[in-house]
Amino acid sequence: MDIFIEPIGKLVNEFSKLPGVGKKTAQRYAYKIIDMSDEEVREFVEAVTGVKRRVRYCEICGNFSEEKTCGICKSRESDAICVVKEPKDVAAIEKLHEFKGVYHVLHGVIDPMAGVGPNDIRVKELLARLQKGNVKEVIVATNPDVSGDATAMYIAKLIKPLDITVTRLAHGIPVGSEIEYTDDVTLTRAFVERNKI
Amino acid sequence: MDIFIEPIGKLVNEFSKLPGVGKKTAQRYAYKIIDMSDEEVREFVEAVTGVKRRVRYCEICGNFSEEKTCGICKSRESDAICVVKEPKDVAAIEKLHEFKGVYHVLHGVIDPMAGVGPNDIRVKELLARLQKGNVKEVIVATNPDVSGDATAMYIAKLIKPLDITVTRLAHGIPVGSEIEYTDDVTLTRAFVERNKI
Repeated sequence: MDIFIEPIGKLVNEFSKLPGVGKKTAQRYAYKIIDMSDEEVREFVEAVTGVKRRVRYCEICGNFSEEKTCGICKSRESDAICVVKEPKDVAAIEKLHEFKGVYHVLHGVIDPMAGVGPNDIRVKELLARLQKGNVKEVIVATNPDVSGDATAMYIAKLIKPLDITVTRLAHGIPVGSEIEYTDDVTLTRAFVERNKI
Repeated sequence: MDIFIEPIGKLVNEFSKLPGVGKKTAQRYAYKIIDMSDEEVREFVEAVTGVKRRVRYCEICGNFSEEKTCGICKSRESDAICVVKEPKDVAAIEKLHEFKGVYHVLHGVIDPMAGVGPNDIRVKELLARLQKGNVKEVIVATNPDVSGDATAMYIAKLIKPLDITVTRLAHGIPVGSEIEYTDDVTLTRAFVERNKI
């Protein structure tokens, strides 16, 4: 006999599909759902389906949006575009309230091993935006890994003829950490990108 | 401006209601839902509503059940009843494949501080089952805390006149742990309940 009756087993299975959720955690979530009132479950389900129904991508930058154009593209005039891999990277940067420009979401990075080439990500859409002329700086904020670096290099090369400054986020020792415990690659990058004080 | 557009913020908020889920984790779950296909989301939602629609409690033991009587009550004849606080405790014990008897879920424990008395939990239902006569042992498996212990004592006293053996799960040092790191209460119980070897 199964430990769970079918509807509970099914829900445990569904929750297990969420990132980082094992059987035990999925079980706790399932029990919580059972304990919820009908109204609470209705709200939960409505939020899940609502996201699927209402979230689309901004026609300009590719970020999450409810309308054709996202709130950032609609409200900001800027000569700086920050290029990121995924919409969630926009949220991570917006949280800082540091960057006041606009974004361009690639929806992926160049990764030949996975069969992802420049035409599979939103590179030509970026070029089209740049050709309109008023952009002065492109900040490439792809992840500091092989495919993120390759994508940054590719974009930099592509943009060069347009006379636009291309920058990349600095690599180095995380603030608050210790040199002793910084991994070799990061420490090497920190040396290479060392600054005058 | 909010970092999230409304439907995403709403879903993050709903996921935050699950036990042990903070904003960061809720965000990861929300992104996962956005990445799911329509079909996957449909299955997820169906599992959530299905649990609410199809899970009720067994009329006999109070465990989760799809029908009037749960699979355990339907398939087992036993002279031993294991009394637990919640349906999820049944799942935890069933996983062991050790106990072959039936269960009785109290749906709570006596907790005067929280205003929960013996009439607020399924004690009289237990008595009704015992009065039918073929039960020889009641194993009280409530949690080893103040209200769990109080509930066990209360049930033991109530059952005494019926000439049924009442037992309680053993307390002691967890297998594989060390005496040095065992908390004082547990270590004391291990002394009190020491066994001849």
